[in-house]
Amino acid sequence: MHGAGHLLEVFFLLLAAQFMGWLFRRFNQPAVIGEVLAGVLVGPALLGLAHEGEILEFMAELGAIFLLFMVGLETRLRDILAVGREAFLVAVLGVAFPFVGGYFFGLAIGFDQLPSLFLGTALVATSVGITARVLQELGVLSRAYSRIILGAAVIDDVLGLIVLAVVNGVAQSGTLELGTALRITLLSVVFVGSAVLLVPLVRRIPFHALPVGSPFGFALLVGIGLASLAATIGLAPIVGAFLAGMLLAEVREELHLEEPVQAIESFLAPIFFAMVGVRLELSALASASILLYGSMVLLIALLGKLLGGFLGALSQGFRRAVVVGVGMAPRGEVGLIVAALGLAAGAVNEEEYALVLFMVVGTTLLAPLFLRPSITWAERAPEPKASQEPLDEARG
Amino acid sequence: MHGAGHLLEVFFLLLAAQFMGWLFRRFNQPAVIGEVLAGVLVGPALLGLAHEGEILEFMAELGAIFLLFMVGLETRLRDILAVGREAFLVAVLGVAFPFVGGYFFGLAIGFDQLPSLFLGTALVATSVGITARVLQELGVLSRAYSRIILGAAVIDDVLGLIVLAVVNGVAQSGTLELGTALRITLLSVVFVGSAVLLVPLVRRIPFHALPVGSPFGFALLVGIGLASLAATIGLAPIVGAFLAGMLLAEVREELHLEEPVQAIESFLAPIFFAMVGVRLELSALASASILLYGSMVLLIALLGKLLGGFLGALSQGFRRAVVVGVGMAPRGEVGLIVAALGLAAGAVNEEEYALVLFMVVGTTLLAPLFLRPSITWAERAPEPKASQEPLDEARG
Repeated sequence: MHGAGHLLEVFFLLLAAQFMGWLFRRFNQPAVIGEVLAGVLVGPALLGLAHEGEILEFMAELGAIFLLFMVGLETRLRDILAVGREAFLVAVLGVAFPFVGGYFFGLAIGFDQLPSLFLGTALVATSVGITARVLQELGVLSRAYSRIILGAAVIDDVLGLIVLAVVNGVAQSGTLELGTALRITLLSVVFVGSAVLLVPLVRRIPFHALPVGSPFGFALLVGIGLASLAATIGLAPIVGAFLAGMLLAEVREELHLEEPVQAIESFLAPIFFAMVGVRLELSALASASILLYGSMVLLIALLGKLLGGFLGALSQGFRRAVVVGVGMAPRGEVGLIVAALGLAAGAVNEEEYALVLFMVVGTTLLAPLFLRPSITWAERAPEPKASQEPLDEARG
Repeated sequence: MHGAGHLLEVFFLLLAAQFMGWLFRRFNQPAVIGEVLAGVLVGPALLGLAHEGEILEFMAELGAIFLLFMVGLETRLRDILAVGREAFLVAVLGVAFPFVGGYFFGLAIGFDQLPSLFLGTALVATSVGITARVLQELGVLSRAYSRIILGAAVIDDVLGLIVLAVVNGVAQSGTLELGTALRITLLSVVFVGSAVLLVPLVRRIPFHALPVGSPFGFALLVGIGLASLAATIGLAPIVGAFLAGMLLAEVREELHLEEPVQAIESFLAPIFFAMVGVRLELSALASASILLYGSMVLLIALLGKLLGGFLGALSQGFRRAVVVGVGMAPRGEVGLIVAALGLAAGAVNEEEYALVLFMVVGTTLLAPLFLRPSITWAERAPEPKASQEPLDEARG
């Protein structure tokens, strides 16, 4: 009479994610790695209790949206602007290095021009969800290096979108379509810019007089509204959600927004991370050539972001610059989407897709593993300069 | 690159539901009617901004689950058991009257035996979501009449499942399959019974020592776990969610469960009610014969539950017995599922399906409209007897 199917899948995902998250925390490892492995465990690769599908993918997307919405709520625009120069540099270098590295590696192992371009493009976009979760867990979201990572992630997504538009345009028509690229650049800059310009006006909104259910209800509308708007123009929904959170950060105390948003996040975000594991087709990676070349691509992906983040954030001191580099390293579904677009355009074959998959899995699991110790190590260093936030603003 | 489709649909649903809910509350009407009409507004019937589909249906189901989970959290088993006799009577009479009424009405207007049985069956199941929301809004969940309604809704669902199993069995094989009916009866009684028997043991669980993310995380597992278990044996998921809430009601203060569950409910429950409106095929109702016969079926559906509830709860005094009757009146998707099963079995035609649809729409909109004034009217009457809860336990 009533179908239990998807409800049961959600149950198994949550059960496994909670247990594995608990296990990893117990051994002082990031819970998020446990949650990803929980997805591998209950996914088709092992137990087969949860599968890829429209519904779970949507729940996962909502999870990422609420995660970044929450992180945005804990982020003030002025703190991002204070490290704006660093964030911009980190984003630009962190896009340039992996792109160039991936492109030339492709040519070096005998790919044609176009597949090499796609390989470079697939290495570009940081997936900030994992890093954000680790920063949140450690209570260091208010640190300057965290602000740099978050600001850079927004710019990174805009840059990644532009690169993809150009490369995909070349794949479709064989020529550089400057018009499309310009239109996308303009749209995404206007979107991010408008959100930033709106921040000073947020305090003037008469929240309790709005024709909505409650101030929290209005906050939900802003979060989901900006996430869908971002998705409509081609940006990641989480970029919209982060900007929405940052807008509402100005009034989060008065409106008591943190607790209810965190409640929704703690329900849905583990589904996001577990679904990363569910999607993992381990069998696609089980070939010697993919393990070999995949490791090289993984290394380029890691070094590219590490170097970009490190050089861009060097003003923060050596150790904190390393944290930024590690924090920018995780790649996610955008890389896979790029590779899938390449497949669809006939510019990329299944083997090249598997290399990108290998790189995504590797960065997803390695980055949080290294992020924790590197933060501990950076926190032991003396305060380098004025841009560092005072300790009392930190949660942990 | 990222699809905005379903995210935008969720946004429009939430936007319309919040505005219409606000509007109805402003005019002292139940917000839930506004939310249903919001779905009609943005649905395919009018603006076409949201559509029926797997993802939104699932979100809606989660919304109903969290609504009844929350209501369960505010309900103690002992309060239900204190009115157990009344709840049982209300459920039995409230199933018998509409079933018999629908069956004979079907025969009277010339239906065959089998379609008449399906018509009776479609009138059986109360959809307690709407009533629960109104009781919650008015802060009267702790009143004896609310306990009777909630207890009766659980028994009603079990009875409805048995009736459906019998009628569907007859439609499939032409004979009464006693084995199937017995199996289903046993399963659902064991399910509800086990949940009830577990209540005294809940306080002994070492919540903070469990290998999960947090006590709230464990509560989520219990809620979604029992909801999926209920769905697996054929009961409504909301019955499982309600029982889960009632189990955890024993420890809700210590574990601070109410605020986070309410946060998730306030996000998802409006989607549930708005989707009721989205599903509304108004065009299917636009025929003179359906309006005429539909009104009669609606009347039988309303009077059947009203009379069953009234007679079953008469010990509470005249006015409170009326509240119980009105509270049991809303029908929902189970009625439509019954009719759809009849369609699939070839025992029901499109016109008869439309009659059931008309009845569901009518009870969904009329019951909350009458429930509010009848509660106000009952609350003005003097306390009738000891079974009434003391006022200080009420929220409103």
